Amino acid sequence: MTHTIVASATKEVIIGFDQPFAVIGERINPTGRKKLAAEMQAGNFETVKADALAQVAAGATILDVNAGVTAVDPNLTEPPLMVQTLEIVQELVDVPLSIDSSVTSAIKAGLEVAKGRPLVNSVTGEEEKLEAILPLVKKYDVPVVAISNDETGISMDPDVRFAVAKKIVERAMDFGIKPHDIVVDPLVMPIGALGDAGRQVFTLIRRLRDELGVNTTCGLSNISFGLPHRHGINAAFIPMVIASGMTSAIMNPCHPEEMEAVHGANVLNGTDQDCANWIMTYRDHVALQGTMPSTLGGAQETKVVPSKSGRQGGRAARVKT
Amino acid sequence: MTHTIVASATKEVIIGFDQPFAVIGERINPTGRKKLAAEMQAGNFETVKADALAQVAAGATILDVNAGVTAVDPNLTEPPLMVQTLEIVQELVDVPLSIDSSVTSAIKAGLEVAKGRPLVNSVTGEEEKLEAILPLVKKYDVPVVAISNDETGISMDPDVRFAVAKKIVERAMDFGIKPHDIVVDPLVMPIGALGDAGRQVFTLIRRLRDELGVNTTCGLSNISFGLPHRHGINAAFIPMVIASGMTSAIMNPCHPEEMEAVHGANVLNGTDQDCANWIMTYRDHVALQGTMPSTLGGAQETKVVPSKSGRQGGRAARVKT
Repeated sequence: MTHTIVASATKEVIIGFDQPFAVIGERINPTGRKKLAAEMQAGNFETVKADALAQVAAGATILDVNAGVTAVDPNLTEPPLMVQTLEIVQELVDVPLSIDSSVTSAIKAGLEVAKGRPLVNSVTGEEEKLEAILPLVKKYDVPVVAISNDETGISMDPDVRFAVAKKIVERAMDFGIKPHDIVVDPLVMPIGALGDAGRQVFTLIRRLRDELGVNTTCGLSNISFGLPHRHGINAAFIPMVIASGMTSAIMNPCHPEEMEAVHGANVLNGTDQDCANWIMTYRDHVALQGTMPSTLGGAQETKVVPSKSGRQGGRAARVKT
Repeated sequence: MTHTIVASATKEVIIGFDQPFAVIGERINPTGRKKLAAEMQAGNFETVKADALAQVAAGATILDVNAGVTAVDPNLTEPPLMVQTLEIVQELVDVPLSIDSSVTSAIKAGLEVAKGRPLVNSVTGEEEKLEAILPLVKKYDVPVVAISNDETGISMDPDVRFAVAKKIVERAMDFGIKPHDIVVDPLVMPIGALGDAGRQVFTLIRRLRDELGVNTTCGLSNISFGLPHRHGINAAFIPMVIASGMTSAIMNPCHPEEMEAVHGANVLNGTDQDCANWIMTYRDHVALQGTMPSTLGGAQETKVVPSKSGRQGGRAARVKT
């Protein structure tokens, strides 16, 4: 059985087909968050800390940490900022971390300070990347996310994306890295732009599991880009990728719809033993809407207040007004 | 490509792997609904009519009609009541119907009055059932739900359930019935009682599609029996069975969570062309909860009012209080 072990100083998380879906919290990432980028550059880590706590409270099992605040001279600015951010986050929460950067020196600097067994995010099939990242992965004995694109870009042909993933796994083995330490990202396209994007991913995940035996991940919210009510699409996508064999995702755990889909799919995938997590999380859940007992006279105006019962996430409970 | 055609006098619905998931509305069923049973026995069809309209408005593509009001002498009471109920429902709505009874004479009576090409629900692998139902299915040239149990009951071994389904398909072929007119119900067990129930069904559906090429259905809500917040489990189960190849379900379409899962999974399965149904249904959707823009200051108390925008289902919209 493929087990990818990711760990903090005190906590170990296993990514695997027989494990609950690993939720890699995506929020600590200044790319595309101008306000957060400015704060981090100014040495203000309050949002980073709040995002770390909120994501763990919402059920994240791993936190992604990215310090890409600027495109200007990232080789100079990003390594020390990555170190600082990792140290602040691992001081605050006990979940394992993912060191997320496109700058090799930032990943290297991160690996020097991250406790336990962090996940490196990421290597691609590009020759330069393989040569830069894989030796670090071997040296520090850590798992790595492998994104299935190469010098030619992202292929629209899923067979090519599979071939790139296979190449990375093989190259990693040349470096002495085991396939169970490679978590492949098959690349998720927006379904609004590419109608076949869902089925492509389901097929790819299945092949990656059956033929390469590797764990998989993805940037989950890509799938719903450009569509209305994105949480609804994301929440349908999660059970579908889990049914296809995906074992983790980089996502925002602070949306209850998505986390409910994760918890539900874990139950149905047999990785929530005796439905214990589901029952604990939703035992006091009151339906927000839907068919009501006829004695109550059908739909009523309701008020939503945060539930105190949710161990993870915190569904809203309905109270009659 | 397997296409099961179900039709009313004026409307045709295709069940198939390349089609939107067929939602077979389950509400018109007095079994376990004492009040409805009493009404129907007294000749009062107001609830039947309301349920027919509500289910079609909520997005049901087929309506199941059951007239099993009593266990006492059903051979006498059920055929005329089935006829009466079918006639009332097909007068009121234009979707195709499913004739649901364990009484052969009620199915026969229903077939004589149902317009178009109704679905017969159901035959099993029991010898007596096969001999009673399959000749009717052949004579009236209609599709039939095949439940994968036999004289020995419901096997806990999914291989046995597959074998029973295969036997029914083969026996149907002996009667001149094509596999595309068989919709197999692989039988869904409660996940709370049998932790492997989900994976069993996913595997069974995939085998039924790949090896027998048949459409499939199930009594969807069985999966969540006994658990808290059943809609959440059902809503996660739907995308998982769709990803595995299930093409229809007998379910309650009046729950927005479940219907949102159906709509979302159709988008992701490539059966909602250009996401047109999704965009139409959710274009004015306002998130009920989740991360709020930080300018709004985080979670607020909200009020839920029915949305007017939902073409199908009707999500609730959030208004600030």
